[in-house]
Amino acid sequence: MQDRLDRTFAALADPTRRAILARLAHGEATVAELQKPFSISQPAISKHLKVLEGAGLIERGQDRQARPRRLRLAAVDETSAWLDQLRSLWTDSFDRLDTLLRSPGTEAPHTQDRKG
Amino acid sequence: MQDRLDRTFAALADPTRRAILARLAHGEATVAELQKPFSISQPAISKHLKVLEGAGLIERGQDRQARPRRLRLAAVDETSAWLDQLRSLWTDSFDRLDTLLRSPGTEAPHTQDRKG
Repeated sequence: MQDRLDRTFAALADPTRRAILARLAHGEATVAELQKPFSISQPAISKHLKVLEGAGLIERGQDRQARPRRLRLAAVDETSAWLDQLRSLWTDSFDRLDTLLRSPGTEAPHTQDRKG
Repeated sequence: MQDRLDRTFAALADPTRRAILARLAHGEATVAELQKPFSISQPAISKHLKVLEGAGLIERGQDRQARPRRLRLAAVDETSAWLDQLRSLWTDSFDRLDTLLRSPGTEAPHTQDRKG
């Protein structure tokens, strides 16, 4: 899981690869169709597709001749889930601090420090 | 924005850096406090912190002596927002396809292809 997240985040760290994913979010596309909007060579686009496929962000469609690529939303969801977890940890910590500060007879640690 | 997303996603593509962010989600911490749970050198942890800071994922707290690091949730939110947009594009495309297939007198393009 760690390793997959490494690969997913690394794959997303490139503007061309993110643009390819945005294109594939509209529907599957062949390598030739993907190459059109980008002014880069076919080997370059193939390399990007390989990285995206290695990260599980795209897969090949069922048509064996055209081999269209399509988005794997599951990988996008896993990546989002990690970020959501981070946000939950943060929110929980703030909630706990808030509860502590509001409980009767408790003074905020920082206020106490500054008084002393 | 493109460049910032590049740096944010690249910073997230490392398990130690993700663990540092998870620790900081619980509250700010000094470099020494961050180093404890990881069996890596101080220069190594400093390098990771530099990458996270360059990506805008962490910032330095107000205490100038301790220089605690804290999470910048705004950067986490921007990253999530990009993934959410991708998901919306995908969902919209499916909704459009669904509407097309359900509209009276419309036959699914694939069914038509296979008949012809």
